[in-house]
Amino acid sequence: MKSDIEIAQSCKMEPIYKVAEKLGLKEDDIDLYGRYKCKISLDILKKNSEKDNGKLILVTAINPTPAGEGKSTVTVGLGDALKRKNKNVVIALREPSLGPVFGIKGGAAGGGYAQVVPMEDINLHFTGDMHAITSANNLLCAAVDNHVQQGNPLKIDVRRIVFKRVMDMNDRVLRRIVVGLGGKPNGFPREDGFMITVASEIMAILCLANDLMDLKERMGKILVAYNLDGEPVYCKDLKVEGAMALLMKDAIRPNLVQTLENTPAIIHGGPFANIAHGCNSVLATKTALKLSDYTVTEAGFGADLGAEKFFDIKCRYGNLKPACTVIVATVRALKHHGGVKKADLNTANVDALKNGIENLGKQIENVKKYGVPVVVAINKFITDSNDELDFIEKYCRDLGVRVSLTEVWEKGGEGGLDLADNVLDIIENENSDFKYIYDEKKTIKEKLETIAREIYGAEGVTYTTAAEKQIAELEKFNLDRLPICVAKTQYSLSDNPSLLARPKGFYITVGEVRVSNGAGFIVALTGNIMTMPGLPKVPAAEKMDINQDGSIIGLF
Amino acid sequence: MKSDIEIAQSCKMEPIYKVAEKLGLKEDDIDLYGRYKCKISLDILKKNSEKDNGKLILVTAINPTPAGEGKSTVTVGLGDALKRKNKNVVIALREPSLGPVFGIKGGAAGGGYAQVVPMEDINLHFTGDMHAITSANNLLCAAVDNHVQQGNPLKIDVRRIVFKRVMDMNDRVLRRIVVGLGGKPNGFPREDGFMITVASEIMAILCLANDLMDLKERMGKILVAYNLDGEPVYCKDLKVEGAMALLMKDAIRPNLVQTLENTPAIIHGGPFANIAHGCNSVLATKTALKLSDYTVTEAGFGADLGAEKFFDIKCRYGNLKPACTVIVATVRALKHHGGVKKADLNTANVDALKNGIENLGKQIENVKKYGVPVVVAINKFITDSNDELDFIEKYCRDLGVRVSLTEVWEKGGEGGLDLADNVLDIIENENSDFKYIYDEKKTIKEKLETIAREIYGAEGVTYTTAAEKQIAELEKFNLDRLPICVAKTQYSLSDNPSLLARPKGFYITVGEVRVSNGAGFIVALTGNIMTMPGLPKVPAAEKMDINQDGSIIGLF
Repeated sequence: MKSDIEIAQSCKMEPIYKVAEKLGLKEDDIDLYGRYKCKISLDILKKNSEKDNGKLILVTAINPTPAGEGKSTVTVGLGDALKRKNKNVVIALREPSLGPVFGIKGGAAGGGYAQVVPMEDINLHFTGDMHAITSANNLLCAAVDNHVQQGNPLKIDVRRIVFKRVMDMNDRVLRRIVVGLGGKPNGFPREDGFMITVASEIMAILCLANDLMDLKERMGKILVAYNLDGEPVYCKDLKVEGAMALLMKDAIRPNLVQTLENTPAIIHGGPFANIAHGCNSVLATKTALKLSDYTVTEAGFGADLGAEKFFDIKCRYGNLKPACTVIVATVRALKHHGGVKKADLNTANVDALKNGIENLGKQIENVKKYGVPVVVAINKFITDSNDELDFIEKYCRDLGVRVSLTEVWEKGGEGGLDLADNVLDIIENENSDFKYIYDEKKTIKEKLETIAREIYGAEGVTYTTAAEKQIAELEKFNLDRLPICVAKTQYSLSDNPSLLARPKGFYITVGEVRVSNGAGFIVALTGNIMTMPGLPKVPAAEKMDINQDGSIIGLF
Repeated sequence: MKSDIEIAQSCKMEPIYKVAEKLGLKEDDIDLYGRYKCKISLDILKKNSEKDNGKLILVTAINPTPAGEGKSTVTVGLGDALKRKNKNVVIALREPSLGPVFGIKGGAAGGGYAQVVPMEDINLHFTGDMHAITSANNLLCAAVDNHVQQGNPLKIDVRRIVFKRVMDMNDRVLRRIVVGLGGKPNGFPREDGFMITVASEIMAILCLANDLMDLKERMGKILVAYNLDGEPVYCKDLKVEGAMALLMKDAIRPNLVQTLENTPAIIHGGPFANIAHGCNSVLATKTALKLSDYTVTEAGFGADLGAEKFFDIKCRYGNLKPACTVIVATVRALKHHGGVKKADLNTANVDALKNGIENLGKQIENVKKYGVPVVVAINKFITDSNDELDFIEKYCRDLGVRVSLTEVWEKGGEGGLDLADNVLDIIENENSDFKYIYDEKKTIKEKLETIAREIYGAEGVTYTTAAEKQIAELEKFNLDRLPICVAKTQYSLSDNPSLLARPKGFYITVGEVRVSNGAGFIVALTGNIMTMPGLPKVPAAEKMDINQDGSIIGLF
């Protein structure tokens, strides 16, 4: 069995200008970053404003398990399959973060024969978007502390600076720090902490902005601190949103690469899927829709978090209308939801499936609530038994839902042809009647109640005293009429990671509520969310190397 | 009078592939980064190993003053002038750091009609080299703290971790911090601090490495900490030098841009000129020498620091042989050395010049000690009187040194033709008999004594008790037989910034001695060196903006 990097390196990439040419992009529409990456001009959207958009296909999944589901792999494989059917297709994906590459997992850009390339570049600095976000974020932080140092006319309360510094590295000792030590020249001492870059609000803003001016305006609206009178202080009060926009002038443009089968893939933006909305940028998706007849994209985590935020946040701000949703599941993952331990996942167990499949059932139900047609993709593993596969197929058919077996990891686009047929048939024959699950003008509690009951299947929502107080404060400052972004465990429909399959009779507990006012959503936290990972005992970095001839070792 | 950005934006840039083509570079030799920047393959050096190198011209200066000397401007203007004389010329410069752009000064890439373009890109993220250095540096830091957290088999003493985190931002509150707060999951608390990225030893290494394997080996040799037995711990003990080299795989390749007059300029690497050696990369210079008949480069600060380190550190590691040195001076700066206050610099004052010019005299004397022929460039200002200019010319001629008036700020290459004539004549008619000022195999004190007496004109060197102890420790671990890098005020030949012109009868006081073992030099600090700047009362960032049409405001 070849490794991902061996497969990737054995593929024949096309020069990216050729991939761009086939999409109708002219020389002036792109800026090359080496031979196999380019950025696409935002003018494309204006130039093609009269042109119809392609059809938008969302790939989502059941609640993730340690067994792995392969959502990105299916997204890439479906794109390749549509291309094999001579469709004009573009894939839109999130870009990976550098820090975690050195931790446990190494790089990621699909897997097997359904990958995006050049994977070593995509997983390292790519076109510098993450670095631009880091710089813009930290410029704002430096401006805040400098303002305090230079007399503090805004009366910023150093105990209530809420906007943190970021670094694209898994570095646990930076989670909680004290800055400004060493006396007067070094500023006022205060508690602070670093997050990983993808957790920056700037990343969420990049992914929701409709153009550079929108990006600048949203950055200006970031809530950075409260003053000593308890009133909000915004980025624009520090007058650095223009400089931040300048830092983001290239990062805002979508990046074009390709799959192993030379299918165009736009990879742009990658916000956290818990404290943020977990989708690639609106601009990437819009660009893909203008350049293609079919755009395949994905959302983070399972459908309860990822698809919900995709529909209620991203589609709302981007005015996007999905035509079809693919829900990825695997036999192994559904058995895990049915209570099977990791060691036993290779053994056929239809009884466990019967319990676990209710997770899939609920995710299907949820997507239908948004009015979007569904097809289930069973991402096949070599250990799956026919009885198990038959059971899932029958379950879906009984619900009136289409289902396809996919083998894209092993076979590339060839392994996704049946899924592609189902998707094309849905788009031709089933109407998407897309609608949001809540009205963002309702109160925070009304919106949260709707998500919890309708999507998670909860009995309701409870709030800690701190959360109650925070909600009252946001209402006081008119910062509450925004979509909701729930930060919740991805492993369960509930806020308890051990409640698998389809839990019932539970309440969601909201412990903290804050506003990402620039991004334009209210973050409701259920439990602790780690925004700065650490490195493991043996970091992946220790196995990485590059040789004189440029050959790379250990990145995947 | 047009501003620098107006001049820059009114120039007609050539597509960079055309600039590259004229240097004989093929499509495969470069990687484009947009239309006006590219990286040059390191294979160029191998491919051209049989080809003679061009002639290397160093531009240096008197000790800098608040009046400004225009060393970069003369470097660019001389390059343009040589091109006007149909010479095959390449300019090699340092790349600017992002952080300071938002502080007092805005961007920098020459000035007036002697600039390097596209200046907005060069001053922002450029091709990502700084970001790569930041990432590699901080990966090593994360690995060190993670090692301690995961059981600390190397017995790293958290009180003696000497390798610091970096950020490319002027952020004073990060100078002294406490990390690892919040209990067991967040690591062991300890004191730490951030430096600005250009102060990273990785930057110095990038600039002294001869290829990617040399870079990796040098990074492996970085001294990161001492263990509880007082012994050194190196980067390679943490096994991350391979991953760091991977992060640097693109950053190591020189960047090609152009001047306003379309002269090729390689801009690559920009280490501090105090705790590091302050020159662009060896690889940039070597690449320039292979592609040109004349390579014009510069060194940081005045000749006592910049040229000394260029000769004794960069030329030593890169095996470079300079053919000619240009020393830049201005009437205003020499009057400042003569004791004239800033407000009075516009008034003719030959008497003040008589005192101040001794600074130029000593710098000429110093360069001659290295066996390299000298020409003085008087960078003309509109306020300069003929009496003053005549005085300087006569002073130089009496010393047997050539002198040219340059007006490159106002006239571009046209204003540097006389200087170009002098340089060409020197190269044709005067032999460079280049030699180092000290043998790096001598002891630290012997080497320091040589630099202080020969170059600074000091009576000798005194050491604090701390420095004595540090020297003894470096000798104990055989880390002392390396070139010396003195961190000293740039404003004086002495270590006292208020001693202008040519001070005499002084001693240099060394307060701290450390090793940059990967870069391969001993840093001797005289006084405090600030490695993390702060922002001023009104940061330049507040005036920066970008509009819908992409037009940039306030960057220069």
